[in-house]
Amino acid sequence: MSLYVHKYGGTSVGDTDRIKNVAERVHKARQRGEDVVVVVSAMSGETNKLVALAHAVQERPDPREMDVLLSTGEQVTIALLAMALQARGCPAVSYTGWQVKILSDASHTKARIEDIQTADIRADLAAGRVVVVAGFQGVTEEGDITTLGRGGSDTTAVALAAVLEADECLIYTDVDGVYTTDPRVEPRARKLDRITFEEMLEMASLGSKVLQIRSVEFAGKYNVPLRVVSSFQEGSGTLISYEEAGVEKALISGIAFNRDEAKLTIQGVPDRPGIASKILGPIAAANIEVDMIVQNVAEDQTTDFTFTVNRGEYKKAMEILERISKELGARNIKGDDKIVKVSIVGVGMRSHAGIASKMFDSLAKEGVNIRMISTSEIKISVVVDEKYLELAVRTLHEAFDLEQGD
Amino acid sequence: MSLYVHKYGGTSVGDTDRIKNVAERVHKARQRGEDVVVVVSAMSGETNKLVALAHAVQERPDPREMDVLLSTGEQVTIALLAMALQARGCPAVSYTGWQVKILSDASHTKARIEDIQTADIRADLAAGRVVVVAGFQGVTEEGDITTLGRGGSDTTAVALAAVLEADECLIYTDVDGVYTTDPRVEPRARKLDRITFEEMLEMASLGSKVLQIRSVEFAGKYNVPLRVVSSFQEGSGTLISYEEAGVEKALISGIAFNRDEAKLTIQGVPDRPGIASKILGPIAAANIEVDMIVQNVAEDQTTDFTFTVNRGEYKKAMEILERISKELGARNIKGDDKIVKVSIVGVGMRSHAGIASKMFDSLAKEGVNIRMISTSEIKISVVVDEKYLELAVRTLHEAFDLEQGD
Repeated sequence: MSLYVHKYGGTSVGDTDRIKNVAERVHKARQRGEDVVVVVSAMSGETNKLVALAHAVQERPDPREMDVLLSTGEQVTIALLAMALQARGCPAVSYTGWQVKILSDASHTKARIEDIQTADIRADLAAGRVVVVAGFQGVTEEGDITTLGRGGSDTTAVALAAVLEADECLIYTDVDGVYTTDPRVEPRARKLDRITFEEMLEMASLGSKVLQIRSVEFAGKYNVPLRVVSSFQEGSGTLISYEEAGVEKALISGIAFNRDEAKLTIQGVPDRPGIASKILGPIAAANIEVDMIVQNVAEDQTTDFTFTVNRGEYKKAMEILERISKELGARNIKGDDKIVKVSIVGVGMRSHAGIASKMFDSLAKEGVNIRMISTSEIKISVVVDEKYLELAVRTLHEAFDLEQGD
Repeated sequence: MSLYVHKYGGTSVGDTDRIKNVAERVHKARQRGEDVVVVVSAMSGETNKLVALAHAVQERPDPREMDVLLSTGEQVTIALLAMALQARGCPAVSYTGWQVKILSDASHTKARIEDIQTADIRADLAAGRVVVVAGFQGVTEEGDITTLGRGGSDTTAVALAAVLEADECLIYTDVDGVYTTDPRVEPRARKLDRITFEEMLEMASLGSKVLQIRSVEFAGKYNVPLRVVSSFQEGSGTLISYEEAGVEKALISGIAFNRDEAKLTIQGVPDRPGIASKILGPIAAANIEVDMIVQNVAEDQTTDFTFTVNRGEYKKAMEILERISKELGARNIKGDDKIVKVSIVGVGMRSHAGIASKMFDSLAKEGVNIRMISTSEIKISVVVDEKYLELAVRTLHEAFDLEQGD
């Protein structure tokens, strides 16, 4: 018998009518003869409400207690969805994270799943029940409630699909699939039927918000076919899986971008070994995540060192850099928080030369000045001024024929 | 070291300011050197909100799922209270019912506590932490969440006080103690400093809403001194314990009343053995609880049989009685749903004669017609027309000198 794990996010279960809608969808799958495990998030808005309550009583809420608090959000949804299924005559049973149990480490608010017990779920499936599991939450060996951090419900769904060896893990969301780029920026953006895990990882990490990185990593690691589908309309969505041999792949699958970037440069630093860690060490120590890093050696034996950070941490990073620059005897520091990153992603790059030059050429023709470049095996990222974002995305979308389809 | 169990109901933790207020109170107790276990209910309004959600998706919600849903209410409160304590520098840790664990039977929505594990709580207390426990909830041997039904948080508090052998179980509420009668009916009602378990039981079962019957029974059974105190003002409240030898007790401790009564009479039934069960059997089978029962045998070998039920079940009971009356060949049935029950309660009755006649006399003097009488060892109840309720309560309050104090 085929087994599918469905995951419905906060918007898809945002009120009781939407929960009934989910129940209807799950019930239909059961009627088609599929076994279904459903993973749900908290109703949209609930988590924010709980966070606000916590901050009203403690400035920096204790992580253990935060998890006790937040995990109630999904617990409400599982009960309501199980009821909605039963109301349709579809046998169902709910499970919290600890009831499953989804064993995690003790890193409260960002725990990692270590093990999942499946005997009870298998028994319920065998008895013809839909199993409704609370996403986002786990339990430690000691019995403390944990939560898995952002996108945790996706992670729960993928992990369950992996241990249960499900045929597919369906991520129901408010978009109908993964697009070549954000349709709000390029209206000709096209829904992809398929994309590989690696491409999706690059798309996700480069700012595409459809799926959380951790869940894609997880799915790739355990080879769980992921499908992004809409909870509000019919359609086959986008399947995320490994590259199939013999399937002709497009050179480029999509264009990702990230508006939340800022760039910092320290100029004229004496070019000595260990200089990079002297600069980035204090930045990392302040918990600031660094994205792109570029270093050029000048002729006078000094070096210019540039890196990007999340725009929200620009000021903090700049302050640290000012301090470091004096210690290192740098000539100058400068920064820019009006920049964005635009990337083309595609496994086809591996076997085709000339992708990079085509990218740079087409941007140059439109007068888009490239400020930084960074490449990996299946993506090329450029940093450009914020004002060029839309132009750059549309130019690349057309240059690589993305509206045409496979 | 002295150990106190505090219990705060929904109104006392109704918003984050009130939760901070509770934290303040608990912290003060810690500073006095007391060990404290706190039991909390859901924030007021939350349970109703959850019930409404459930009814929006399933007409008769599945009891197991209802418990999963409802138990989130207290889980929110324990996390917030633990945070509020920590914010004051007072170490604290929260426990859900299953974390404690409070083992119950599987009667969802009205489970009974079977066992409580105390090792973890004792360890936390020994480490100087305040232990915050979710009231109202338990877990079955199989790991299903249960709830304890109405007044369940009181039951949790008393049960914890019993197994932990606490010095006292303090029930914090929105009133400052137990009164001789409802001050809204008799403004001269006086707060009692002490009352016995038996008296409190009668007061509770007769309609005084301060404490739930089950928790008083439980406290009596395990000899846990209970104290009803206000969460909003200072004061020593009312202590509920066993009668102390040598302490002179007032004849009457209080006057309870119940507005939700209705009375049904079946007249002219042939007086045969087993007639009572023939009448009450079908009533019980319909899950209608019968309160007072009075039977008079007439001269013609027929009998009149009168009983009272909750006013909400009057119509249903009347329909059953109509059916039975034909089967039994009764002469007539009649009913009245405009009646109330007024009771005087006191352990002093045991050793004093003449209480009943004093009660009946004083009511008669005011023209209050008594429709039914029922007595137990420590209470006398009369049924009177609804319109006489206030007059009857005030008359008895004065007749037994209740405003005077012990």
